[in-house]
Amino acid sequence: MKEKLKIIPLGGLNEIGKNMTVVEYGQDIFVIDCGLAFPDNEMLGVDLVIPDITYLRRHRNKVRGIVITHGHEDHIGALPYVLKELNVPVYCTRLVAGILNSKFEEHRMLGKVKINCVKAGDHIKLGCFNIELIHTNHSIADSVALAVRTPLGTIIHTGDFKIDATPVSGEMIDLTRFGELGKEGVLALMSDSTNVERSGYTPSELEVGKTFEAQFKGCDQRIIIATFASNIYRVQQVLDAAAHHGRKVAICGRSMENIARVAMELGYLTAPKNVLIDIADINRYPKSKVVVVCTGSQGEAMSALYRMAFSGHKQVEIGAGDKIIISASAIPGNEKSVTKMINELSKKGADVVYDRSAIIHVSGHACCEELKLMLSLVKPKYFIPVHGEYRMLRRHGELAVQTGVNPRHVIIADIGRPVEITAKTARLANPVPSGKVLVDGFGIGDVGTAVLRDRKHLSEDGLLVVVVTLDSESGIVIAGPDIVSRGFIYVKEAEDLMEELRRISQRALDRCIDEQIRDWTTIKANVKNDLSEFLYRKTKRSPMILPVIMEI
Amino acid sequence: MKEKLKIIPLGGLNEIGKNMTVVEYGQDIFVIDCGLAFPDNEMLGVDLVIPDITYLRRHRNKVRGIVITHGHEDHIGALPYVLKELNVPVYCTRLVAGILNSKFEEHRMLGKVKINCVKAGDHIKLGCFNIELIHTNHSIADSVALAVRTPLGTIIHTGDFKIDATPVSGEMIDLTRFGELGKEGVLALMSDSTNVERSGYTPSELEVGKTFEAQFKGCDQRIIIATFASNIYRVQQVLDAAAHHGRKVAICGRSMENIARVAMELGYLTAPKNVLIDIADINRYPKSKVVVVCTGSQGEAMSALYRMAFSGHKQVEIGAGDKIIISASAIPGNEKSVTKMINELSKKGADVVYDRSAIIHVSGHACCEELKLMLSLVKPKYFIPVHGEYRMLRRHGELAVQTGVNPRHVIIADIGRPVEITAKTARLANPVPSGKVLVDGFGIGDVGTAVLRDRKHLSEDGLLVVVVTLDSESGIVIAGPDIVSRGFIYVKEAEDLMEELRRISQRALDRCIDEQIRDWTTIKANVKNDLSEFLYRKTKRSPMILPVIMEI
Repeated sequence: MKEKLKIIPLGGLNEIGKNMTVVEYGQDIFVIDCGLAFPDNEMLGVDLVIPDITYLRRHRNKVRGIVITHGHEDHIGALPYVLKELNVPVYCTRLVAGILNSKFEEHRMLGKVKINCVKAGDHIKLGCFNIELIHTNHSIADSVALAVRTPLGTIIHTGDFKIDATPVSGEMIDLTRFGELGKEGVLALMSDSTNVERSGYTPSELEVGKTFEAQFKGCDQRIIIATFASNIYRVQQVLDAAAHHGRKVAICGRSMENIARVAMELGYLTAPKNVLIDIADINRYPKSKVVVVCTGSQGEAMSALYRMAFSGHKQVEIGAGDKIIISASAIPGNEKSVTKMINELSKKGADVVYDRSAIIHVSGHACCEELKLMLSLVKPKYFIPVHGEYRMLRRHGELAVQTGVNPRHVIIADIGRPVEITAKTARLANPVPSGKVLVDGFGIGDVGTAVLRDRKHLSEDGLLVVVVTLDSESGIVIAGPDIVSRGFIYVKEAEDLMEELRRISQRALDRCIDEQIRDWTTIKANVKNDLSEFLYRKTKRSPMILPVIMEI
Repeated sequence: MKEKLKIIPLGGLNEIGKNMTVVEYGQDIFVIDCGLAFPDNEMLGVDLVIPDITYLRRHRNKVRGIVITHGHEDHIGALPYVLKELNVPVYCTRLVAGILNSKFEEHRMLGKVKINCVKAGDHIKLGCFNIELIHTNHSIADSVALAVRTPLGTIIHTGDFKIDATPVSGEMIDLTRFGELGKEGVLALMSDSTNVERSGYTPSELEVGKTFEAQFKGCDQRIIIATFASNIYRVQQVLDAAAHHGRKVAICGRSMENIARVAMELGYLTAPKNVLIDIADINRYPKSKVVVVCTGSQGEAMSALYRMAFSGHKQVEIGAGDKIIISASAIPGNEKSVTKMINELSKKGADVVYDRSAIIHVSGHACCEELKLMLSLVKPKYFIPVHGEYRMLRRHGELAVQTGVNPRHVIIADIGRPVEITAKTARLANPVPSGKVLVDGFGIGDVGTAVLRDRKHLSEDGLLVVVVTLDSESGIVIAGPDIVSRGFIYVKEAEDLMEELRRISQRALDRCIDEQIRDWTTIKANVKNDLSEFLYRKTKRSPMILPVIMEI
C-alpha cells in the first residue's frame, strides 16, 4: 500500500507553549520547532516543561533534522535538552542562530551541535521533504513559515505570524508566496490560533512607536520602558524615539542585554550614534535625558523592573521623577504579579502607563481577519489549527469553514494524536507517546505526578514526622516517639497539641505491641491513622504524616 | 483640646477584599463592614483571610456596633470570626440579615449574635454617631451607602456601588440624597475605587437580560448559565427569560441555592409560576425546555459548572446539546482555571458563550464617569478613596481633583493608618495594629509567615528527613542514619543518590564524634550543610533537610 503522511503534534495543541510538530513519511522524519512551556501553578517547584520525545527516540534513525520558525522560547527552548538525546542538524534563520549560540554556550554545548543558517526563500532538503522558508511578520525578527513539499502534496505551517503592512524593518509577510502556493494547491495548512478569540486586525508594530513619540514629547521625567526581551522591533523604536528627543538609552536585564547584543552584531538592531549608554552610567545624566528599556513586563520576580519596584536594583532607584511604560500585556497567569509590581512603582511616586488607553503594546499574532485572509490565500484541502487551547482550535476551525474549507476537513488534533493523510483521506490515528517532561534543576523528568502530589500536599498542610526507635527483639519502644513538624502550625503556640500527638503515637505503638504486630508497614499505618483522625477532628487539617521507625 | 475624628481602615485599602473601616470619636467607635479576602498564591493551604482586629480588641469598651453596607463575602465574611471575640450588635438590611442567618447557622452561632434589621432611609444612633442608610445600586440587592453625622461634620461611605437608571428591581441609587447632603456640606467621602481604571459608565444590569433574551430565542439546546451565587438580579433575569421561552429552571450549586432560597423567602427573588424545578428532575424534560443556573463562573474546583466540565456532576452530563453561558468576568487570578474549564466544556461538544462580543455580564461597580458624578454631588472637603489597590486609589484621587477637590485634601490612606480629622485639618496619624489574619481549617492566626515559608520551601523542592539514634554516653551512632524523602525525587529512580546521601550523613556524624561535638544543634547543622551542599551541586535543588536525632 501507499505510504501515509503523518503529522504528529508533540506540543502546542490544547496548551500554550512547547510547540513541536513531527512530519513523517516512509523512512523520513523532520521536526518543526522545539519549544518549552512554563510550569502552571500545579507544577510546584518545576522550572520549565519540555515535550516528551519518546516517539522521536524510537525512530531516531529516521529523524533528518529540526527546522525552527523563529527564536521565541516556546519554539526553541527545548533544543538544549532534546539535542542532548538526539543530536540532529538544526535549521534556522540568522537571528535564531545567534540566540541559540548564546543559549548553547550556557549549556556548554557549543560546537557539539550542528546549526545551519538559512533564510526566507531558501529550500531545505530533508529526506523526501523539500522545505521552503517563507518570510512572515511576528514580534521577533527573522520569523518564517514553512511550505513542505511531500510526496502527497504541499503542507504549510505558518509558525507564529501576523500581517504587518508597515513593519518597523524588513518586508511585510510574503502573502504573495502563500497565494502562489494556494493556487498550486495545498494539501494541509497548520495555522497559529493564538489570537483567534480576537476579532479584526492586530495593529502594526509602528503604532507603538507613535505612542512612544507621544509619551516622550515634552516629558521631563526619566522614562523606563519594560517589554519582552526578544522584541527587537520594540527596542529599536525606543532607540529611535530616544535619539529623536535627545535621550540616552540603557538596556537593562540579562535576557534583553543578550538578545540586543546578538541582534546588533547581526544588524537586526541598529543603535543611533551615541545613544546607548551602560546602565551603570545613567545617574551621570539628568533624568530628562535618560531612557531605560528593560525586562519585567510580566512582573517576573528576578526581572529588572521588578527589582526596581522592590528597591532591589543597584543602579535604578524609582521615584517621582520616573515615567514607567509597561509595553506589553500580561500573559494569562501573570496578571497578579504585574499589578503587584505596578502598585509598588506607583507607591514610590512614579507615573505608570499600563492601561489600554494608548497603544503601548501590540500583539505578534494574527487576529480573526488576518487568519481568514491566510486561509483564503492558501485554500488548503485539510486545515489543522495549531498553537492554542481546545476552545481556540475549535474557533479557528469555524473560521476555516467560513472561508470555504469543508467542515469534515477541519481536523482538531491533540498532542500525540497523529494526523494520517493519504491520497484520499485524512484521519486521526492512534495516539503515540507524548506529554510533559518536567525540568527541575538538573533533573529532567525525575519529577512526576507522585512527587508533585507530595509537594502539593506538603504545601497545603505541611508535615509531621514521627520518629521512634524499637528494640529489634521485643519490638518495645526504646526511644521516642519524637515529633517534628514543618509548615503545619507554630510549634511554640501548640506545645500542648504536640504533647497530645506524642501520647497518641505512644498509645498506637503500645497497641501494636499488645497485638504482637511487628511489621513496620502495619505499625506505621496505625500511628498514621490515629494521628490524622485526631488532627482532622481537632484542626480540620491533614498534614502529611511521616512515621519513621528505627530498630536496634 | 477638641476631640479628633478618626477613620481607620482595617482592610480594603491597597488590597482587594476584607473591607473594614473603623470610625472613632471620643469614647465611641463603630465599624463599617467586616469582610474576608481570599488567599493569594503565596498563602499556601490558607482557606481565607480576615482583618487583624487588635485595635478593636484594645478598645472593646468603645465599640458600639458594626454596620454592614451589603451582603457580599468581602463585606460580611469575617463576621463569624470577629463576633466570637467582640459580640457587638450588627446592623444590616433584610437580605443581608437573611444571608447572615444561614452563615451563623453553619458556625453554630445562631441566637448568640444580635442582628438588627434596618432599611434605606433609616437612621442608626451609635454613641455620638448618627448613621443614615442611603439606597444604592450594586450586583446584590439591598445595598446601602452610609452618611454618618459626627460632631465634626458628615462623612459618607458609598460602600460598593454603581449607578443603574434601569435596575432589574427597586429604585435607582438615591442620587438626590447624596446631592442634598452635598449641599449641606460633607466633611469627608470614602468611595468605591474598584472600577476606577475603566472609563465611561457601567452598563445597566438590564443589558444582560437583553442578551439572555437573544440567547434563548430559537435555541433548542439546554442552556446552562453560570454566574455569581449572590447576584439575585442575574438569577431573576434568567427566571424571567426562561418563563418567557417556556423553559424550566433548576438552580444548582450550594451557595446559589442558599442565597436564592433566602432571597425568595424575603421577596427579593420571585420565580414565575411553575418555572422552578429540582436539579434532580432536569432529565425528565427535553433539553430544549431546560435552563440550569449555577455556580462556577470563576472555575472554582468544587463549583457546579466545574464538576459538570470534569464529569463529576451527578445530574448534569455535558454534551453537544448544551449551550453554556459564562455570565461573569474572571476575577484576577482566576483566568487560568476559568479557561481550563471552558476548554473541557468545549471538548465535550458544548457551545460556550464566554467572550465579550455580547453583554453577558456587567460589573456591579461604578466606572470613571459615575465616580466623578458621585464626587460632584457630594462635594466633600476631604476625599479618601477606598476599596482598591494603591494604583487605583491614586487614580481615584486624580478624578476627585478633576471634580474640584483640593489636591491637598485627597488622602491616600492604608490599612492601619488612621486618618485624623479636626475642625481645621486632616492628616495620616501613626499606624495602629492591622494586617492579615490567616484562617486554615479551625485555626485562626496560627498560620503565619514562618509556617508559610516552610510550606513554600516544601512545595518547591520537597524534603529530606535524616534520622539517627545515638548512644547517650559515647555519642556513637547506634542506628541509622536513615533517610526518608517526600516531594523531592522519585526514590526508586534515585536509590544510588539516597545511598550517597546516607554515606554523606554518616561521614558528617563520624566527624562530629572525632571532634567530640555532642550538642545536637551543631551535629544537625553539620549533617544539614554537608547534604545541602552536595545536593545543590548534584541536582541544583534545595529540599528542606530535617535531621532528627534520638538518644538512648
